[in-house]
Amino acid sequence: MLSDDLRAAISPVSQTAARAARERIDALTKPPGSLGRIEDLAVRLAAVAGEIPTHNYERRVILVGAGDHGVAAQGVSAYPPEATAQMVSCFLGGSAAINAFARAVRAEVYVANFGVRPALAPHPRLLDYNVGRGTADLALEPALTRDEVQRALAAGVAAFEEIARANPFDVLALGEMGIANTTSASAIIAAFTGKPPSCIVGRGTGIDDARLARKIAVVQAALGRMRDRSWEETAREVGGYEIVGLAGVILAAARARVPAVLDGFIVAAAALIAGAIAPQAIGYCIAAHRSQEAGHGYACEALGLRPLFDLELRLGEGSGAALALPMIEAAARMTREMKTFAQAGVAEKEEGEEAKPVSAA
Amino acid sequence: MLSDDLRAAISPVSQTAARAARERIDALTKPPGSLGRIEDLAVRLAAVAGEIPTHNYERRVILVGAGDHGVAAQGVSAYPPEATAQMVSCFLGGSAAINAFARAVRAEVYVANFGVRPALAPHPRLLDYNVGRGTADLALEPALTRDEVQRALAAGVAAFEEIARANPFDVLALGEMGIANTTSASAIIAAFTGKPPSCIVGRGTGIDDARLARKIAVVQAALGRMRDRSWEETAREVGGYEIVGLAGVILAAARARVPAVLDGFIVAAAALIAGAIAPQAIGYCIAAHRSQEAGHGYACEALGLRPLFDLELRLGEGSGAALALPMIEAAARMTREMKTFAQAGVAEKEEGEEAKPVSAA
Repeated sequence: MLSDDLRAAISPVSQTAARAARERIDALTKPPGSLGRIEDLAVRLAAVAGEIPTHNYERRVILVGAGDHGVAAQGVSAYPPEATAQMVSCFLGGSAAINAFARAVRAEVYVANFGVRPALAPHPRLLDYNVGRGTADLALEPALTRDEVQRALAAGVAAFEEIARANPFDVLALGEMGIANTTSASAIIAAFTGKPPSCIVGRGTGIDDARLARKIAVVQAALGRMRDRSWEETAREVGGYEIVGLAGVILAAARARVPAVLDGFIVAAAALIAGAIAPQAIGYCIAAHRSQEAGHGYACEALGLRPLFDLELRLGEGSGAALALPMIEAAARMTREMKTFAQAGVAEKEEGEEAKPVSAA
Repeated sequence: MLSDDLRAAISPVSQTAARAARERIDALTKPPGSLGRIEDLAVRLAAVAGEIPTHNYERRVILVGAGDHGVAAQGVSAYPPEATAQMVSCFLGGSAAINAFARAVRAEVYVANFGVRPALAPHPRLLDYNVGRGTADLALEPALTRDEVQRALAAGVAAFEEIARANPFDVLALGEMGIANTTSASAIIAAFTGKPPSCIVGRGTGIDDARLARKIAVVQAALGRMRDRSWEETAREVGGYEIVGLAGVILAAARARVPAVLDGFIVAAAALIAGAIAPQAIGYCIAAHRSQEAGHGYACEALGLRPLFDLELRLGEGSGAALALPMIEAAARMTREMKTFAQAGVAEKEEGEEAKPVSAA
């Protein structure tokens, strides 16, 4: 099984490298701890790399996983299903939000088609792994077949490898597109966290009260149908091609010791599947932003990840993950390029003064 | 008076341009409001520019204002006063945190010497306006003379103009360096907000309980000495050369319709002085990050600014402001480069669906 192979091939992140990074960061010309979460990020990058990083994470790829969802027929989204393929065209044409953000943070955008309904024209930035032409309607039946779950996971691994060959990168930001995929992600997050759907399901692209009630009922019914909460059963019953595909991407990134920057709600659902397959893979993930979607906090808690910032984003596409990329470069450059007090000849803290956490006030 | 001239020369930000930007942003291929605070930032950039920006804010300068403080003699900092000049050398040599961050966000670092005690060697990135060799000790007497207040303000304006000539920029991020300057900033923020010093004074670079108590007592005593809370009296009694200088920089930026990105606690004190001179100047300011320093929230509230992110930073130097620069580029590119639904041929929201704020759930 691919999932067993991946689990076996992923090492835990390096605590030794993390300690070495923390030691160096504490000796740099700044009050200890004064760069807060950027320091924590730098330590995580070292843990992921297995050493204090030797580069600045300047080769950046944003991978947008796309797929259609049969459950869109239930009227759970504010947008019609054809918007999925139309937005993929925008991503490839360079006119969407993620393209503007990618240019701002000097990253390349690729789209992985894990299961969009219409056939897509070839494009150099399109990885066409179409596992199926949109999932089945999870309100009525399992969204994927057992075979499709395996193929979607394999497609994610293959997408990672294909980009790595074509355009080697130091860091991978993950995004998604799929009309109605907050319904699928809500069900996955509810399944893995055990929280009731009413706590997890949100307004996605901006639905009204009637559609919200319908969405909660759909998720509730699908969860009731599940025989267990294993990753296979969850992915099969309520998954999406792009969500399972992105789980494969995360596992491939962990195997390659490349940091995977998670966007918001949908990508968190993918990470929960990846973590159910190989818990140590989550050590390779960086949560970029806190999404406006209600259940994102529960997903992050279950993953043990704390988002870096909250800009009240609820777009997806990888937009939040993109904005974390310059912070990653800043963290790496801080660790590598700053001098220590000894190197710089700057006066250190005076005798008898110990740094205290601000919260100790 | 320079302050009167500046007040008269600064126009309010453009509400017309803000409305035009909001209208365009609402028509772009994304659910309305789904880019949250990046949309608000884009609207602010338009208000500052007086039109939808025609560029991407790629010419970026970080200006670090430096000065020494006589109050350092009271043992209110964890570091000795000579660290100010030593850190300025690090900034000019490229080895400090702000240099690493500046490289990560493609910005140029300049240092304005508004009043460091030792003489500094000339350097192409040093603007040497030394108003005095460190302020007087605000615990004992007014920190600045009336004349020095005026000269520091003028030096800030001159520093802005000098960099603008040498290295034209689209956006200016402000930082500071000055051992003991959180004491001065605390007193300024307490004076302008009316909050008691115990709510405003924090641990700065990481002082212990004894130094914290001393710092609060020093601020309390200095405030008690002030005859009024005018900007001139506040700047004279408890100011710092670099804080008054940065107020001048902010006013010059507003006059030039250039966004001024504020760092944390010290720069917020400078913005309060700028706002007391010309309230409309605050419309040109962008608060980058929420500082770990206790009183920063009160300062932001008084300024009417809401920081973009909170990375638990408490370093200064402009480190938080630097990290906001890619977000500014992302906001500008979103507004300019994204297509509207009509341009892109993407299906819009379905009939009867209106976007609702998430908080209406």
